[in-house]
Amino acid sequence: MTSVDFWYDFASTYSYPSAMRIEKLAAERDLAVVWRPFLLGSIFAEQGWRNSPFNLFPNKGRYMWRDLERTCARYDLPFNRPDPFPQNSLLAIRTALALDEARRPEFSRAVFRAEFEFGKAIAERSTLAEILTGMDLHASAVIEDAALPAVKQKLKTEGDAAKRLGVFGAPMLVTDEGELFWGHDRLEEGLDWAVGRR
Amino acid sequence: MTSVDFWYDFASTYSYPSAMRIEKLAAERDLAVVWRPFLLGSIFAEQGWRNSPFNLFPNKGRYMWRDLERTCARYDLPFNRPDPFPQNSLLAIRTALALDEARRPEFSRAVFRAEFEFGKAIAERSTLAEILTGMDLHASAVIEDAALPAVKQKLKTEGDAAKRLGVFGAPMLVTDEGELFWGHDRLEEGLDWAVGRR
Repeated sequence: MTSVDFWYDFASTYSYPSAMRIEKLAAERDLAVVWRPFLLGSIFAEQGWRNSPFNLFPNKGRYMWRDLERTCARYDLPFNRPDPFPQNSLLAIRTALALDEARRPEFSRAVFRAEFEFGKAIAERSTLAEILTGMDLHASAVIEDAALPAVKQKLKTEGDAAKRLGVFGAPMLVTDEGELFWGHDRLEEGLDWAVGRR
Repeated sequence: MTSVDFWYDFASTYSYPSAMRIEKLAAERDLAVVWRPFLLGSIFAEQGWRNSPFNLFPNKGRYMWRDLERTCARYDLPFNRPDPFPQNSLLAIRTALALDEARRPEFSRAVFRAEFEFGKAIAERSTLAEILTGMDLHASAVIEDAALPAVKQKLKTEGDAAKRLGVFGAPMLVTDEGELFWGHDRLEEGLDWAVGRR
């Protein structure tokens, strides 16, 4: 089965609608999705940004919130603006990486919903614990795993891979042949490309 | 007839497919388009950018060129990468503003084609003169008009209006109620919104 890599960060706003919609769209195309959480902030830092560009450039930020609200309405996704923004996504990403790959999509969607639907602080251990418990997992064991050197190393390796592929934002679809599709608005186009529909 | 404002800069890459496609899409919706060329560079300068963000952030630039190439292929638009990039669009914008509003769309599409289809330097008087002559206009008279104080003032007024509306990039659709739609990928959505389809 052909697959496509889905790079996302829990702090990234347009990653939310993408994460909520991608599996259905991929299934319609007989396509498998590899969920690859990564720390977008470290790529931004290399560009000299110590904050989200949506905070650094206020007009762009105002536009993004309105556009995201319209986008969510369009796809019947609940939307609440996270406060503060951006949320610190480090622990959630590490936890996603500590999980078995098969549970990562479910966990990731639950984190996005906690953040953008229920207005919870995803940097909090308790938010993640509640999600893990809801998945019938041993929450404190998983969160302890998230602090293991192997997981920190995985986070670094994934970040390096993202940079090597030319990933500069999220969400980003990357096909087997290295074709990049940036943003929720390229979701269908990227999935089509991955299955040879150009 | 309902109308929508189409803000664009000849130096803006995604303004090209938007300019080539907007009139047909608007006509299908019984919508009038008001063509409003403006100097995006002066808005970028206020954000501290003295060059195109696509040059300042190389990964983003590489992505944009590939994405634009795919986009143009998708809509059967010829595509050649302008060199140098960005082109200096000041004279072309002033010339567009010096023209009667009714001739502005035709002139603007011809400038975009000169730049992205035929690889011409749009900063050159001769490129613009050829376009104007092709429109049965008195080229040197129009280009002289483009240097009039009234036209320079109009350029400034339009730039101020763009800032006031929150325009931070191009192309940008702005509806009567002040709703913004940024980018070629929001073209259909913005036109739909302008005619009340949400």
